[in-house]
Amino acid sequence: MSGLQRGAEEILSFVVAGFSELRREDLDILSLEAESLVYRLVPGPSHLRPGGTLSGPTLVTVADLGLYLLLLARGAPPGCVTSTLTAHFLRRPAPCAVIARVRLLKQSRRTAVGEVSLYSEGDEAGGPIAHVSLAYAIPAQA
Amino acid sequence: MSGLQRGAEEILSFVVAGFSELRREDLDILSLEAESLVYRLVPGPSHLRPGGTLSGPTLVTVADLGLYLLLLARGAPPGCVTSTLTAHFLRRPAPCAVIARVRLLKQSRRTAVGEVSLYSEGDEAGGPIAHVSLAYAIPAQA
Amino acid sequence: MSGLQRGAEEILSFVVAGFSELRREDLDILSLEAESLVYRLVPGPSHLRPGGTLSGPTLVTVADLGLYLLLLARGAPPGCVTSTLTAHFLRRPAPCAVIARVRLLKQSRRTAVGEVSLYSEGDEAGGPIAHVSLAYAIPAQA
Amino acid sequence: MSGLQRGAEEILSFVVAGFSELRREDLDILSLEAESLVYRLVPGPSHLRPGGTLSGPTLVTVADLGLYLLLLARGAPPGCVTSTLTAHFLRRPAPCAVIARVRLLKQSRRTAVGEVSLYSEGDEAGGPIAHVSLAYAIPAQA
Repeated sequence: MSGLQRGAEEILSFVVAGFSELRREDLDILSLEAESLVYRLVPGPSHLRPGGTLSGPTLVTVADLGLYLLLLARGAPPGCVTSTLTAHFLRRPAPCAVIARVRLLKQSRRTAVGEVSLYSEGDEAGGPIAHVSLAYAIPAQA
Repeated sequence: MSGLQRGAEEILSFVVAGFSELRREDLDILSLEAESLVYRLVPGPSHLRPGGTLSGPTLVTVADLGLYLLLLARGAPPGCVTSTLTAHFLRRPAPCAVIARVRLLKQSRRTAVGEVSLYSEGDEAGGPIAHVSLAYAIPAQA
Repeated sequence: MSGLQRGAEEILSFVVAGFSELRREDLDILSLEAESLVYRLVPGPSHLRPGGTLSGPTLVTVADLGLYLLLLARGAPPGCVTSTLTAHFLRRPAPCAVIARVRLLKQSRRTAVGEVSLYSEGDEAGGPIAHVSLAYAIPAQA
Repeated sequence: MSGLQRGAEEILSFVVAGFSELRREDLDILSLEAESLVYRLVPGPSHLRPGGTLSGPTLVTVADLGLYLLLLARGAPPGCVTSTLTAHFLRRPAPCAVIARVRLLKQSRRTAVGEVSLYSEGDEAGGPIAHVSLAYAIPAQA
């Protein structure tokens, strides 16, 4: 598995430009290494459910974005897309920032597989709120 | 597995009241049987990606809502929640209505498992755009 | 998605030759169409758990073999391999033959995705004993 | 999540007694903590494929057994059963011992969820050969 080719600021700018629902001030990369990434996302009002919790699809989105950020940092083309994902919803999320710990399990020329553990900020000791494993298909690069 | 306890109009009213991002006029139940349901959802502007396709989390949401509707129709309490889901993203969705075909695989007192095939309306012969299998945890009823 | 290129007898002979734990007399293809296959497997003594039920990995193997048979029938090379699978174990299997209903969801040049419902023979009305969705990676053909 | 209630020798003796295909001399627990376990399994001849690799169902079995061992050590009843599992097959396994790193993600009264990374012994730096996330249903205890 190769090393990093883009920095934290570059990949964040890229996803903020591409996804209108993401705001730069709601995203922070806390750690970026060759095969792992930790980032923080402050959910917006549209992510909250009545009762002040985060919806399952919001958690899926946070995990999916996490592996996408790591793949971008490793030089993958922006057109890589999720081919499959499995989510386990484990604990009721607090209505606060989410910390996503991303681990790359494998990257070959056309595929990448990773796993992501999600935590409510300030309660990592309480255990993950969700766990997601997922695969990306990487298009052939020109 | 038991039969139906609520009708199409009742379960649609229920989810529209509970989820502010759903509009009644965007939802239709095309078929409702004891162990299956087919429904149609017209995605809103927030579901569309640049290039006019639907995001993966939107498809996950549509599948998840489909099994939830069927469980509500079968009398499950509104507080049932997704415990795990697996999605395969198969084809690029067209920017149009989605048809979800939901099949209940098992329902016990505390758990339900189902699978959902999603299609772009008008192109069902082209094959599913996504397939989702998922489990719900059903809270004990008072 | 293309049509069938090999018949039932040919694909069964092929897998029996390749997997020493499979016996021809324990396998039957009940239906073979372009995008679906139904087959029957009589489990051997090594598949049975104390108490006379089938183990989870045995059910996974039956499902995996089912999609492999369909892909072979469609002309895929024997070297195609499972890249990911998700199994839901739904009901206690009876210690008898298993019926596997395989549905191809998508096949592209390098990937195939399918879903398989497994039943205890003679109790299909009781609902599936397991459901498996899975993806194969197809090697480039010379 | 509670602590450990049974030791390594006790849980190994238990599974060897219950599963005739397991031999005590092929199993070693390398590390056992409240929420994680590392164990080593030497596959038998029946686990090997022509070409000297391990089959996918064998890897699934190793992962499944790993979480089962950890749950037993934590005091779960022997009758707990896998309800769902997702496996990603990542690299061709070498025909040697498998190291399984098990992490408990959540345990409630009736459910446990964990994830397992599998490695070929002596090649952990090469990355995992498979990753499995899975859930167990825990029966009510008398």
